[in-house]
Amino acid sequence: MNIEEIIKKYLPEEEGPAGVLAESMIYSLMAGGKRIRPSLMYDAYKMFGGTEEVIEPFMAALEMIHTYSLVHDDLPAMDNDTLRRGKPTTWSVYGEDVGILCGDALLTFAFETAAKGFAMTAYPDRAAKAIGILAQKAGIYGMCGGQTVDVINTGKQLTEDLLEYIYRDKTGALLAASLMIGGALAGSEDIDKLEETGYILGRAFQIQDDILDITSTEEELGKPIGSDERNNKVTYVTLHGLSGAKEEVHALTERVKTLIGQMPGEKDTLLALVDKLEKRTY
Amino acid sequence: MNIEEIIKKYLPEEEGPAGVLAESMIYSLMAGGKRIRPSLMYDAYKMFGGTEEVIEPFMAALEMIHTYSLVHDDLPAMDNDTLRRGKPTTWSVYGEDVGILCGDALLTFAFETAAKGFAMTAYPDRAAKAIGILAQKAGIYGMCGGQTVDVINTGKQLTEDLLEYIYRDKTGALLAASLMIGGALAGSEDIDKLEETGYILGRAFQIQDDILDITSTEEELGKPIGSDERNNKVTYVTLHGLSGAKEEVHALTERVKTLIGQMPGEKDTLLALVDKLEKRTY
Repeated sequence: MNIEEIIKKYLPEEEGPAGVLAESMIYSLMAGGKRIRPSLMYDAYKMFGGTEEVIEPFMAALEMIHTYSLVHDDLPAMDNDTLRRGKPTTWSVYGEDVGILCGDALLTFAFETAAKGFAMTAYPDRAAKAIGILAQKAGIYGMCGGQTVDVINTGKQLTEDLLEYIYRDKTGALLAASLMIGGALAGSEDIDKLEETGYILGRAFQIQDDILDITSTEEELGKPIGSDERNNKVTYVTLHGLSGAKEEVHALTERVKTLIGQMPGEKDTLLALVDKLEKRTY
Repeated sequence: MNIEEIIKKYLPEEEGPAGVLAESMIYSLMAGGKRIRPSLMYDAYKMFGGTEEVIEPFMAALEMIHTYSLVHDDLPAMDNDTLRRGKPTTWSVYGEDVGILCGDALLTFAFETAAKGFAMTAYPDRAAKAIGILAQKAGIYGMCGGQTVDVINTGKQLTEDLLEYIYRDKTGALLAASLMIGGALAGSEDIDKLEETGYILGRAFQIQDDILDITSTEEELGKPIGSDERNNKVTYVTLHGLSGAKEEVHALTERVKTLIGQMPGEKDTLLALVDKLEKRTY
């Protein structure tokens, strides 16, 4: 299983008058990235005994949704970033208007890709559930909601509760969706447990991001470090210090591993991925 | 059947820290509009013998997608409009960042609403097809593609071919989707014919819009008239004159009515709607 190949398989065509839109989508999707969400989805799918290719369009779809969120986050009206993963951001290459449209088209193409995928599947009920999870966790009660709370509180002193809300919805929701969709497509009954696990993993992931913003290098991260401090951003690290944050990431990771341990199936690959996420340096 | 009530039934909740996002979505959705797409969907559904409420979430979903496209079109980086249907545009009320997120959330919520709808339905195969149509016609091979071609050619002298492409994808695709989804959910086999009909209707609709930009009043349209001329925009009217454009709308409308006449079922309501669209003054 090669995730890059799977993502390439579901790219849009660059032909016709709207070719620049496809080009911008491909540029954004192929600009690198750790592919954590499709990896988690695949590992959960396998753990629950999934064996078919039906998982592939959903892996690509989730990466498209993650990518669209970055493309829109980088816009001048949002974070106004010109560099991501060491490359110029989508809007700074294609213009702000095509940047907006590129995000819109990636989000829509995610559902088109998933819908094509479930038209193929022998289990329309599972696929229907998976599409519902994808939409719910990406939307107002998931990523879009978390992003909004983040945006409207920029520059304000966040409470611990509000910070938790942002971490949960902005970062946790798509990681939860990864595990849940993997489980749903394999016919698992443990969707609620996968959801809980995903949210805890998301919290660990986001705090690790906050740590890396201080301890990593610009070369490793592909973007300037120290941006949270410069922007006076309240993070888990500013509230609890570096060592407190590291302890929290470790405790959350252990909790994730315990939860996974309680699920059925062969779990070594998923557990190894969770360990890798704790130890990541970018 | 009251479309306003159906749309209200599927609105998001305004509670919690992301309440302003829900508020902006509701503001955008309830700011008026002719509700043409859900009307077409409903009439096509009935014509092909559909009798159940499963159509409702799809009607709401399509209006959400139409609304998101207007919210993003109005952004400063796109058309930079502050007034729509006589009311301040979403971004000018909630800010540019929430305006972007509002569009994103409406698009995602459309799929969440449709997915909930098809989880309810006794015909998952039909509903799967309907979700696929929704995504395809809203995406790179539909509305997003058409919008991109429009945006990247702003201020340029359009050829007739390119203008037709923009009319087809930017306007026609969602009208085609309306008829196709109505048919698909009712189990019709005539999806290709509904698609063709929808694209011709979309062309008539867009040329009528171009005509109204000259012949209507600011009060009726809810926005300044004459904007195409001021922006040196190439339209069917600038290429063929007002009377040429009116003739074309009439000829296209007749063609639509002939195509509908060839389909099975009770078609009076849909035909009356098509007539009404030709005669509309706003």
